[in-house]
Amino acid sequence: MTRADGRAADELRQVRITRNYLKYAEGSALIEVGDTKVICAATIEDKVPPFLKGTGEGWVSAEYSLLPRSTQTRNIREAARGKVTGRTHEIQRLIGRALRSVIDLKALGEKTIWLDCDVVQADGGTRTAAITGSFVALVDAVNSIWGSNPKPFPVKDFLAAVSVGILPGGVALDLCYSEDSTAIVDMNLVMTGSGQFVEVQGTGEKGVFTQTQLNEMLTVGAQGINALLDIQKETLGQLSWKVGREG
Amino acid sequence: MTRADGRAADELRQVRITRNYLKYAEGSALIEVGDTKVICAATIEDKVPPFLKGTGEGWVSAEYSLLPRSTQTRNIREAARGKVTGRTHEIQRLIGRALRSVIDLKALGEKTIWLDCDVVQADGGTRTAAITGSFVALVDAVNSIWGSNPKPFPVKDFLAAVSVGILPGGVALDLCYSEDSTAIVDMNLVMTGSGQFVEVQGTGEKGVFTQTQLNEMLTVGAQGINALLDIQKETLGQLSWKVGREG
Amino acid sequence: MTRADGRAADELRQVRITRNYLKYAEGSALIEVGDTKVICAATIEDKVPPFLKGTGEGWVSAEYSLLPRSTQTRNIREAARGKVTGRTHEIQRLIGRALRSVIDLKALGEKTIWLDCDVVQADGGTRTAAITGSFVALVDAVNSIWGSNPKPFPVKDFLAAVSVGILPGGVALDLCYSEDSTAIVDMNLVMTGSGQFVEVQGTGEKGVFTQTQLNEMLTVGAQGINALLDIQKETLGQLSWKVGREG
Amino acid sequence: MTRADGRAADELRQVRITRNYLKYAEGSALIEVGDTKVICAATIEDKVPPFLKGTGEGWVSAEYSLLPRSTQTRNIREAARGKVTGRTHEIQRLIGRALRSVIDLKALGEKTIWLDCDVVQADGGTRTAAITGSFVALVDAVNSIWGSNPKPFPVKDFLAAVSVGILPGGVALDLCYSEDSTAIVDMNLVMTGSGQFVEVQGTGEKGVFTQTQLNEMLTVGAQGINALLDIQKETLGQLSWKVGREG
Amino acid sequence: MTRADGRAADELRQVRITRNYLKYAEGSALIEVGDTKVICAATIEDKVPPFLKGTGEGWVSAEYSLLPRSTQTRNIREAARGKVTGRTHEIQRLIGRALRSVIDLKALGEKTIWLDCDVVQADGGTRTAAITGSFVALVDAVNSIWGSNPKPFPVKDFLAAVSVGILPGGVALDLCYSEDSTAIVDMNLVMTGSGQFVEVQGTGEKGVFTQTQLNEMLTVGAQGINALLDIQKETLGQLSWKVGREG
Amino acid sequence: MTRADGRAADELRQVRITRNYLKYAEGSALIEVGDTKVICAATIEDKVPPFLKGTGEGWVSAEYSLLPRSTQTRNIREAARGKVTGRTHEIQRLIGRALRSVIDLKALGEKTIWLDCDVVQADGGTRTAAITGSFVALVDAVNSIWGSNPKPFPVKDFLAAVSVGILPGGVALDLCYSEDSTAIVDMNLVMTGSGQFVEVQGTGEKGVFTQTQLNEMLTVGAQGINALLDIQKETLGQLSWKVGREG
Repeated sequence: MTRADGRAADELRQVRITRNYLKYAEGSALIEVGDTKVICAATIEDKVPPFLKGTGEGWVSAEYSLLPRSTQTRNIREAARGKVTGRTHEIQRLIGRALRSVIDLKALGEKTIWLDCDVVQADGGTRTAAITGSFVALVDAVNSIWGSNPKPFPVKDFLAAVSVGILPGGVALDLCYSEDSTAIVDMNLVMTGSGQFVEVQGTGEKGVFTQTQLNEMLTVGAQGINALLDIQKETLGQLSWKVGREG
Repeated sequence: MTRADGRAADELRQVRITRNYLKYAEGSALIEVGDTKVICAATIEDKVPPFLKGTGEGWVSAEYSLLPRSTQTRNIREAARGKVTGRTHEIQRLIGRALRSVIDLKALGEKTIWLDCDVVQADGGTRTAAITGSFVALVDAVNSIWGSNPKPFPVKDFLAAVSVGILPGGVALDLCYSEDSTAIVDMNLVMTGSGQFVEVQGTGEKGVFTQTQLNEMLTVGAQGINALLDIQKETLGQLSWKVGREG
Repeated sequence: MTRADGRAADELRQVRITRNYLKYAEGSALIEVGDTKVICAATIEDKVPPFLKGTGEGWVSAEYSLLPRSTQTRNIREAARGKVTGRTHEIQRLIGRALRSVIDLKALGEKTIWLDCDVVQADGGTRTAAITGSFVALVDAVNSIWGSNPKPFPVKDFLAAVSVGILPGGVALDLCYSEDSTAIVDMNLVMTGSGQFVEVQGTGEKGVFTQTQLNEMLTVGAQGINALLDIQKETLGQLSWKVGREG
Repeated sequence: MTRADGRAADELRQVRITRNYLKYAEGSALIEVGDTKVICAATIEDKVPPFLKGTGEGWVSAEYSLLPRSTQTRNIREAARGKVTGRTHEIQRLIGRALRSVIDLKALGEKTIWLDCDVVQADGGTRTAAITGSFVALVDAVNSIWGSNPKPFPVKDFLAAVSVGILPGGVALDLCYSEDSTAIVDMNLVMTGSGQFVEVQGTGEKGVFTQTQLNEMLTVGAQGINALLDIQKETLGQLSWKVGREG
Repeated sequence: MTRADGRAADELRQVRITRNYLKYAEGSALIEVGDTKVICAATIEDKVPPFLKGTGEGWVSAEYSLLPRSTQTRNIREAARGKVTGRTHEIQRLIGRALRSVIDLKALGEKTIWLDCDVVQADGGTRTAAITGSFVALVDAVNSIWGSNPKPFPVKDFLAAVSVGILPGGVALDLCYSEDSTAIVDMNLVMTGSGQFVEVQGTGEKGVFTQTQLNEMLTVGAQGINALLDIQKETLGQLSWKVGREG
Repeated sequence: MTRADGRAADELRQVRITRNYLKYAEGSALIEVGDTKVICAATIEDKVPPFLKGTGEGWVSAEYSLLPRSTQTRNIREAARGKVTGRTHEIQRLIGRALRSVIDLKALGEKTIWLDCDVVQADGGTRTAAITGSFVALVDAVNSIWGSNPKPFPVKDFLAAVSVGILPGGVALDLCYSEDSTAIVDMNLVMTGSGQFVEVQGTGEKGVFTQTQLNEMLTVGAQGINALLDIQKETLGQLSWKVGREG
């Protein structure tokens, strides 16, 4: 199988994560996956949504947005429309859910961590890049309030996400925009550092898929996740030792 | 494994589909899955969204809503809030996408089929019930405009959906609300009459899952889908012969 | 005068009220008036609107909505529009006002009773059906919190509503949709069990009317109300004895 | 019966109509009924709502708004809330419907007449003052496009509105704000120059009313309407001759 | 330079301020500048925006709106659009900021003064008329709560505003609508009784301007301000002595 | 006068403009002024707002937004609020107006150029940075459609903007956020390459200012503008020769 940009079927695009990209946020990262670029900012807020008040538990919530010219044709700002689109809602719910799966919300206490994922350039895979980049911002934000606290660090495991799909030529990892447009099946995988699934979302709008194809996608996806976890660890350096460990 | 209502782990609740439940719609069904009740109405509109104008292709779109007292505590009407929640957006996008996978949009021509799924009573599995019930409404609606047209009927295959999850006691089919609240993993499956996947959405907010567990859920889910397909066929009677066949 | 469906000028359509139609609501009813079908749900909430806080008085509020395919052509969901139409506002204000007239709000205490009226099928007279059906749901909801309380039951009197109009052929009771479209004058009456008026709303958009015609409409309307009161009493059975009496 | 301001039970407050109050509108009036002051502006627009396109018929539509300090305590601007309240919707629908009843919409042709009723000061009876004042603005607006056209003038009859209610002391005409707050029954009447009813809206939120009381209110109301019709005719001067007559 | 209405280049239109124009507001004024007419109402509210709670300081906030037929062609009500336009936002921010500059917010204490500026007729210069008229309403409102308090009156200085522009024929004071439409440069000036600037807003959408032209506009504007200050003082009569003085 | 960051009173922060920062936009720039960072994207659209249809003239319009963590404390996304704040409206109107002043809208033809200004980091002066950076994006965007067209290039002159204010220590150029918070007077200047004013906006919310102080601010501001114009020219390189010249 030959891909437009010469990659192998199971090869990620070049990934770069710039830690502490922003001056004011408690944690932040610019993640670049090929031409896809997402700014991820983590904010710690000393309150929780109404349903958690008084429970002693915290929350993690995400917001996602495309800059108007992150895309080939300008997309109208949601602030100008006066409402958030269905696609955005779906993506921000996914990001929040994914990150909550590796956070000990009780240990966090009654705080909310907001993850703002703003897409500067969109060339496919923005939601998975947002999850992978947000994880780095989240670790820094938690560290900013945890300091040398000897209790177990509230981030329990690593977390990364990747897309994988079935192109006319077969299963392919990390689809860029032009591939995504022609994919028969599109799947997003979110997995932990210990190799377990957090989300498996496979959709066959242009076709359907068999159990065999599903398994092939899961195998190729898990490989991509492993490569992303390595990049996260390298980016976080020494801090990566705190994840999943006592303080 | 013992379930609250005495069902076996791989057993569906009682399912009943009342065809042509509404007087005015081109197709309609009331689907009852245990205490979950959803009214599905199909409307045919002689126009398409802007991105399809002039292409000769049609579209299928869905809307989903909970009646305020479909739930244990009253939920605020989205019309009163002035906006649709993220959960609703996600569900209606799923329903639309699922039904489009079995429709030949070119054969349909420049028409939109709207599927309105209104939940009268919600006891878990409303989105999957909505897909299964909407399929019946859709077939009737397409038949209302297709008549004795000799060309292949635009509904290419059967389609049903079911939930399956991992409860503290193990994998279970068709979760009711009280089970859903305690599930570690929640998965929604949409499959065709020919046994292929259209959507696989597994989410582990309260925990993560392994490949083995994923496979077990897929097996149990496929069984549930088969039972639902039989009920759809029985409900549609003779009309079920048109699905996937020449006119 | 001959009517499309063969009824006499002063004859109601067939009316059926299914009590406790919903599983979770504190009171509920499905009312069917000919092909018009409305689900009425009563919810008791332990708070009141800001203007009543600390007064010891309760409130009754209503919301009304048409399901998209309750009507001949699909009507756009108000949640999708992002706002409630003027017609809906007017109807829900009418329903709330009507039911408040027979409730002892002081005896109720600082609680709000919400009445959700969702029209499943609309063939004329949905607002009056909503009032008549909501009354039944309201009595059950009040009973659910009143139990064997020996104080006077807070529902002070029965309440029903009916439409009456001037058709080209003369005054007619309980207009169905096709009659409503051609009516010269349209009037909605809300009356109590003791035969007094709560609301008289007569509108002559396609014509005007004289005092004599007004009186004729009031007479025919009062007859229809009496028939509806009988059906409510039969539906409520023994519970109907509590209305307007000491506990 | 003694009223707060010394009026007789069947006496209007002082009414003054200033014709052509605004420089730019096609027709306009400032109506003062005691301390209630409403600016009524009529605009002629060369298009109609979608449901009338191509029918050759025109439309009359009204909008109503309270200035923030027209009332005793400041009311929040609907533009700031982002939505129109239910009360406003109900009032503007009433004004539009009332004025349409005396306009020959076919003779008007495909034009919309907008009536903007802005309440500068609110001391009860703003909706009826808005109708009575808007009628004057409407006649001027129609005259501005009709000129010396020999066909029948499209305003077919005079139209005025008044409130009447049951106070603790008995039936009273034209309630001011302090009376309105204590009224047991509140009724708005809209009548034509020929003494026929266009709207009868009686509401008993604080009590109920009998047929006898209804008749008494109708009699007193009709008297008030007659006095208002005289003031309209005087205000319109010579132009009042065109109403209901050939050009 | 000859102006359409015969004024000299540095001449104001006729200005009239009617104090206490409204019955309920704590302070109010109708200001007429030629055909421009604005109702200004001041309301005192016993709370402050969140960012001032507990600081002991007060706030002044303004809202501005055009009546639909204040303009040559009807402008759509912002309540109907569901949102406030950018132009309105800009104007109400300007009015609030301007009036805050002459109020001692600490002396006011934790109160908000709302200024509602409703334009009845718009013939150019509505925002500057709103500021000049609101100042009068503000003084009366502050006086209503200050009474004979011996501390310094919280209104520290007089404040007025005027427009000045560069027309094809040269610099001109107080532009009416037709002049405004052809102006090359448009400037709004807000100045205090002691001759200092509060706001200088010069905009050259149809052209640019030099330092010399800017100075000429400032000189002519200051003259206009002086004339307006005299009218304010005359309107306020004895009360004008309190401004900027001990109680 | 000593400034927090050691700058002289009339010294700009370090300014860097990265041309063609985005892959898809017709023109784009990242402008950095000290820690303030704004992404400016220019989009060319083949249509104009309704009021220009058929006139043959084009338009320039701007949108401005703060990323949630561009600021010290997270600011709520306008898309989540469902509306654009007054501050944003004011800023985007200013940016659009400023850029229109140097564009020959007739030469442009019926096209709209959108300028999207997204603030990645906000340390004061974001609106003036947005104007200065947008000018660069605009020139590239116009060039992308103008090519080697021999007619005069539609960008008629250079354009830059800067802030200047009165701090407790005196007049200072290019205020950073901490200075801005304590400024007595805040002024934004927009000037052309030929040294003329496009906008002069001086505001004294914490104090007032004299003519002498105004002149001092204008002098210091003009110096800052000259430095910015040099940076723009350097950034645009050869393309800067087209501005204001025949093709």
